[in-house]
Amino acid sequence: MDDTDLIRRVEALEARLREVEDRAAILDLIARYGPAVDTCNGEAVRDLFADDGTYELEGWFFTHETMDQTVTTDLHERYVAVGSAHVMSLPTIELHGDDAVAINYSRVFIARDDQWIVDRCAANRWDLTRTTSGWKVKRRVNRLLQGTPASHELLAGEVPPPVR
Amino acid sequence: MDDTDLIRRVEALEARLREVEDRAAILDLIARYGPAVDTCNGEAVRDLFADDGTYELEGWFFTHETMDQTVTTDLHERYVAVGSAHVMSLPTIELHGDDAVAINYSRVFIARDDQWIVDRCAANRWDLTRTTSGWKVKRRVNRLLQGTPASHELLAGEVPPPVR
Amino acid sequence: MDDTDLIRRVEALEARLREVEDRAAILDLIARYGPAVDTCNGEAVRDLFADDGTYELEGWFFTHETMDQTVTTDLHERYVAVGSAHVMSLPTIELHGDDAVAINYSRVFIARDDQWIVDRCAANRWDLTRTTSGWKVKRRVNRLLQGTPASHELLAGEVPPPVR
Repeated sequence: MDDTDLIRRVEALEARLREVEDRAAILDLIARYGPAVDTCNGEAVRDLFADDGTYELEGWFFTHETMDQTVTTDLHERYVAVGSAHVMSLPTIELHGDDAVAINYSRVFIARDDQWIVDRCAANRWDLTRTTSGWKVKRRVNRLLQGTPASHELLAGEVPPPVR
Repeated sequence: MDDTDLIRRVEALEARLREVEDRAAILDLIARYGPAVDTCNGEAVRDLFADDGTYELEGWFFTHETMDQTVTTDLHERYVAVGSAHVMSLPTIELHGDDAVAINYSRVFIARDDQWIVDRCAANRWDLTRTTSGWKVKRRVNRLLQGTPASHELLAGEVPPPVR
Repeated sequence: MDDTDLIRRVEALEARLREVEDRAAILDLIARYGPAVDTCNGEAVRDLFADDGTYELEGWFFTHETMDQTVTTDLHERYVAVGSAHVMSLPTIELHGDDAVAINYSRVFIARDDQWIVDRCAANRWDLTRTTSGWKVKRRVNRLLQGTPASHELLAGEVPPPVR
């Protein structure tokens, strides 16, 4: 084997390794959402999002600037006071160079009496982007799973229409 | 260092990288099950399975040919109409070259009133195989967790007897 | 390119690959907890922990020596008899060479009538260490999510005080 072959193999390794690193970084980014909101750490939530990142739920819309308000809604403050777990499921991840799309389920478990009930169960689409500070969320859309077409479209991979 | 050493190191990297790529591909394969069934996309379910792939649950048995019927059972159609989340837990994965075994939990969350209840909670064993179209499921066995020996055997890694 | 450059690139690949391998091994280690306890396999639980590993829950404290007793408490035996799923969520993972910290949620789903209820929902901090037998748990701390400061501190990444 001459050096040219070896260089090509090393280059191929570098490209492939970058993809598995990207997947690991995206898993970690999504996993960090729960501990951030369950400790009411608005700055930690904001840090998951790109500078132009947005988070849309039925009834709420947050931009990077207002992202810390995700943890100060009445509903959220009640959740954390009684005991809450915002649990993100294993996502599917599609990589496209410096962009990626992840789809998963989120559930909010809330303490009630001696058990925990599931107070929210939603489909999530995460549009992600590579920034100089690592992978960040450009847009997260969250839709409650109540049999609506909008929730099924999200799970099916359709790009949700812009909010405004 | 001479070239032979360097080639050996590159070869070792290639083999190790392949293993982490395999793990990432298997995580993604398993994560794609939920969105496929919760959108009643029978073709997407079928696409997760190898040409000779099977899916066994107590009371149902699907082959590659009938796999799209996973989303047309009465139970499933009721699930999706009210709002459902088929959530796959983080699996354990054992790689054996071109085959692999994953074990995890699946739960079906169903909307009821203003909450979601857990209508199914099961142990799963996934026998996986590398095909020319990537990793696919050769056999998935799903057993409800109701204290039965069969469910414990599945979680313990025992190979379930063939259906027929 | 001369050989020195190529060697440097191979070395960089080796270091980066090791990190993604570490992450994959830690995911697998955490995923193995559920099947171990839900089959009452005390030895499998012990095998997840380093020789000086400990596991702390409110009301219980296990060392490597007593780790098999995690599956023989009254509560646990009742869980497994009726049907239980100890499900670990996707963790955040911070690597520091031969040590790592993972934070996630655990939930215990228990069969009741025709459904499963969530009987425990807890924050978990896993201090992990690389051993000659692979990654192991040095210390796991589990705190029920009931709105307590101790549970929030755990999720926020604070190191819990030693038990004794």
